[in-house]
Parts: sequence; structure tokens; C-alpha cells
Amino acid sequence: MMKRVMIIAVIGGEEASVEEARLAEEVGRELARRGCTIVCGGGSGVMEAVCRGARAKGGHTIGILPGHNADESPPNEYVEFPVFSGLGYARNSMVALSGQAVIAIDGAYGTLTEIAYALIHGVPIIGLDTWDFSYHGHDAERIVRANDPVDAAEKAIAAAQKALRR
Amino acid sequence: MMKRVMIIAVIGGEEASVEEARLAEEVGRELARRGCTIVCGGGSGVMEAVCRGARAKGGHTIGILPGHNADESPPNEYVEFPVFSGLGYARNSMVALSGQAVIAIDGAYGTLTEIAYALIHGVPIIGLDTWDFSYHGHDAERIVRANDPVDAAEKAIAAAQKALRR
Amino acid sequence: MMKRVMIIAVIGGEEASVEEARLAEEVGRELARRGCTIVCGGGSGVMEAVCRGARAKGGHTIGILPGHNADESPPNEYVEFPVFSGLGYARNSMVALSGQAVIAIDGAYGTLTEIAYALIHGVPIIGLDTWDFSYHGHDAERIVRANDPVDAAEKAIAAAQKALRR
Amino acid sequence: MMKRVMIIAVIGGEEASVEEARLAEEVGRELARRGCTIVCGGGSGVMEAVCRGARAKGGHTIGILPGHNADESPPNEYVEFPVFSGLGYARNSMVALSGQAVIAIDGAYGTLTEIAYALIHGVPIIGLDTWDFSYHGHDAERIVRANDPVDAAEKAIAAAQKALRR
Repeated sequence: MMKRVMIIAVIGGEEASVEEARLAEEVGRELARRGCTIVCGGGSGVMEAVCRGARAKGGHTIGILPGHNADESPPNEYVEFPVFSGLGYARNSMVALSGQAVIAIDGAYGTLTEIAYALIHGVPIIGLDTWDFSYHGHDAERIVRANDPVDAAEKAIAAAQKALRR
Repeated sequence: MMKRVMIIAVIGGEEASVEEARLAEEVGRELARRGCTIVCGGGSGVMEAVCRGARAKGGHTIGILPGHNADESPPNEYVEFPVFSGLGYARNSMVALSGQAVIAIDGAYGTLTEIAYALIHGVPIIGLDTWDFSYHGHDAERIVRANDPVDAAEKAIAAAQKALRR
Repeated sequence: MMKRVMIIAVIGGEEASVEEARLAEEVGRELARRGCTIVCGGGSGVMEAVCRGARAKGGHTIGILPGHNADESPPNEYVEFPVFSGLGYARNSMVALSGQAVIAIDGAYGTLTEIAYALIHGVPIIGLDTWDFSYHGHDAERIVRANDPVDAAEKAIAAAQKALRR
Repeated sequence: MMKRVMIIAVIGGEEASVEEARLAEEVGRELARRGCTIVCGGGSGVMEAVCRGARAKGGHTIGILPGHNADESPPNEYVEFPVFSGLGYARNSMVALSGQAVIAIDGAYGTLTEIAYALIHGVPIIGLDTWDFSYHGHDAERIVRANDPVDAAEKAIAAAQKALRR
């Protein structure tokens, strides 16, 4: 069988602060340096920054867009392979499912759905400056916390490799 | 135009404690007494309890199931109108969209996706003993808290009516 | 277990000729007379006519709409229970899956997807003045032809009962 | 803006005859030679053959799978970038939407849904030895017929370029 590259999902908000965009871009670079392909929602903010970082280091980037075509749902300019779902935000479950691990960077309610889908489907999830949510006082402890972009990339790759060996 | 009934989505976990099931059943009864139809995910736990309560008071119940048919995804016995999506948990966005308001009772990660979808799409959401989640220390303050099933039913109906008038 | 009513999907075009609308309305009446609930795409044309017929005879009608809410995707006025999918035409597979049998009346490419989904998933399908399609010269012989609305309703119910007994 | 490659969807049956597989593989080679990326359903038969042909000429291949992960829905070994939808056959609309043009090679009911989705959404469609369907005696004349794999690749690229200029 042909060797298949590792695909890591990176999720986060459509609007990103300067600091969040910097983190996302560095995550993209670090993943691409380690031979990973990025899958994301294909939009602006964190999604654009992570794709920009990945492409700068020669990585591939897949964007799963909510709309039917590039007019309705323009991919950010660093998406190499746009996939048009036509499903609106219901496409969020696909973003989580298509990574062998997920890195969450900040984000709003859309990101929260993706985090929850990763948790439902057992996709390993690494959090970098993201949602804390508690339930009856218990943290969602299955989110592995990362300290910085290098740590996030390394923890995601390790988690994906561990999941493959199971 | 023919008068259309109000439809309220009730979301919550597939596994419910005795107390959660009691709350859900009472929510179903209170909504049906007020002429509302229930939409839910069609499964067990909170979903079954709310349908049981609604049917006991002559209410209608719609269940949007994850599977392709009743063999793959059996509706609970109090679902009057099963809709088979074949979409797995990606159907969760539809449950939130199909209520004019949403009542969340307890629940796990699936419920969390439905809460987030309601927040994304601006569907009013009432929480009864459910997820608290915070983001950088801020609560998701758009969830209206209810004290008991009667309060939840009344707040959901009021929120749905207010949304209609906009 | 509570007795559940039979649900029949009726599919067809958003634009219907006078004759097609007459056929659809009569199908709706005949199904409702026999105690069936209608599920359809919730829109205009054949969908509106079949709902009108069903409601006139006291039947229930479920419409699975493409949009996120009634503003984006207004249900026809005879839809009693609108379900908002937010999935666009990807919701067509759900319409086919949610009937215990499908009746196709005329229709365009959307109807063709629903016919094909019924054939993929083994949902019995009755055709009343609808797509003929051939493949390398072979007809899609799994579509049972009906001569008129009464025949369509009776064949759909018989096929649904047979499918249940398997 | 970074230059984005052209993506062509290739659709066809999970089971392919020797001749159909030969056609599909040659279509994959001809598209890759012309710099196109392939998107398909990621499975066996025509999908596997077109990916094999594309990879042999250095092309990229994206497979949009029905299942949640590689265990449930193994991509064929020539899929470079698997996207897991978890949507079952409802993912078919995405395959059609994600190509700038679609080439249909033979195929069964799943392919028919993809052809119909391409026609609904105005994606140009080229047919190579595929479904003929007629409606009240009229052919679906919007399918452009190709004589051989080279002709199919050239007509798809020309149609995609024409669609872009609109």
C-alpha cells in the first residue's frame, strides 16, 4: 500500500486576534515541517493562518467549506484543496472526523461543536488557548493542553500515532 | 394560512439518571399541555422521557434519528413521527434548527453540539441542569437558566414567541 | 409499544402542472384516508399539493426543508411539522429514508436524487407519471408503476407492509 | 492569490468491469498529465482505478468517504487525502460540488445521485459510457458525451475553464 501522509485537523475561530493568528500560523509551519497535511474549515481567522503557515513550509492544506462553491463560500487563499460541502455548519463534524488528531486554537461556538464531535468520535484533541468547559464542575479532561505551537504539533502527532497503533 | 403549532426542541443525554428522566418527562408534559409539539433526537434517556411525557398529555413528538432506518436506529416508543437522517451525529444541528426554542436537560457531548448549534443559529436556548461552559472565564450567558420544568416550558414558549415577532 | 402510524414519502417537483398538482393532491387525500402520515420536502409544487390533500382529510404532514429556518426556506402552508435541515439538497436522502415507501410524481433532478436514494437504500418506490431512466438499455425495473392516485396509495401501503414483515 | 489547481470530480460504480476500470484509470492519467487533482468518493471500482491512474502520473487524489474513519470506510490505496464525512451516501452531493467539472464513468444508483446533483447545481458534467436517462421521452441533454478518456479529460477541463470565466 502507498504510504499515506498524516492529516491533522486544526480548528478555531473565523475571527482571530493578532496573537491567535500568530499561534495558528506557527502550528501550520510546525505541522508541515513534520510532514503533516492540514485539514480545516477553509475560512478566515485561525483557518487562514494555519493554512498560510503550512503552505510556507510546503505542506498541503484541505479546506472543507460550508457553501456550495467558491462564490458562496470563498476558501482562504492558502487552501490548496477546497472541498465544498453545501452543508453549512453541519460540515463541522467532518472537519473533526478527517483529522487523525485535532488541534483547537481559541474559537467560538463553531469550534465548540468541532471539539465536541472530536470527543464523541474519539479523535484525540489538543487544546492551545481554547475553550474550557465544565460540566457539573468537572472539566472535559480528555482535552490535552499544549503550551505552545511546537508542543501542540508534537502532541497531536504523538496522539495520532498512538491512535493508529490501537 | 393554516395555523401551525409551536415546536420546541428538547435535547439531553442518551443516558439519564432517575432525576433527569423525571425532569424531562415533566418538561414534555408541560409543553404538551401548552399545545407544543416536541422535536428531539428520537433516542433513549432524556429523549425518551420527554416524548413519554408529551404523549401522555396528547402532544405530538418528532424524533430525528441518526441512522437510516428503525433497524439501525430504533426510535424510542414515544416517538410519533420518526425522521431517519442517515447522518449520524451530524444530524444534531437539525434538532437545534427545528425547534423555535431549545430546552437542554443535562446531557453529554452530543448535547453540547446541539447547544452550540442553537447558539450559532440564534435559536433561543433554555438550560435546565445542563452544561456550564466558560470561555476565557466568561460564561455562555446566552443560555437562559430555568429553575424547574414549568419554568423551562414557559421560558421556551416566551422566547419562541419573541423570536417570531422579530 | 405504542402503535406508530405508517409514514409515506411523496416526492416530486417544486413546479407542478395543473394535472400533476391534481394527482399529488389526490394521492395526499388517499393516503390520509388510509391513516398514513406524509413526509416530503416541504416546498411548493407537488409537495404543496400532496400536503393540501392530506390535511383536507385530517392527515399529518412532515416537511424536511433545505434551509435553516422558515425565513430561508418557507414551508408550504399545509406542512404541519416543518423540520429544518440546513443541508440544502443534501436533505433529499432523508426524505427518501423517512418514508416506509416512496411515491414519486413527476419531478426534476431533485426528485431523481430521491428516487435513486430510495433504490440505494431499498425503500420501496412507486412511480406515478415520473422519470423513466434506462441504463445501457435496461429500465430501472424496481420502480413499481401506478395507474392513478388510488393505485399509488394502495401499492405504497402494500409495499410498506411487506417491507415491515421482512 | 496563490494559484489553485483545477479539481475534477470523477464518479462511477464501486464495482467496475475490466473495461470500465481501464477507462477510469486512463481518465485519471490524462487528468493528472494536464495538472488536475481528482476528487471522488474514495472507494473501490471506478474510484480506485481513477486514483491509481492519477497517482501514476503524479496527480493528487482526494476521496470523500461515507464513513467516520478508515475502519468503517477504508479509502482505496490510491487516495492521497481521505476526507471522512460520516454522512453515508448523503456525501454524494459533496463529491459533485467539489469538482469544477464532473466526469461520470458507468456507475449505479449512487452515481445517478451524483449526476443529478451536478445537474441541480450547474456543475458541468461529461459522460463516458454512463447513465442514459430520459424523462417523458426527453434526454438529459446537459450531459456532454465523451468518446474516450482523452476526450473526457479535455472536455472536462474546457467546461471547468468556461464555468470559471462566467
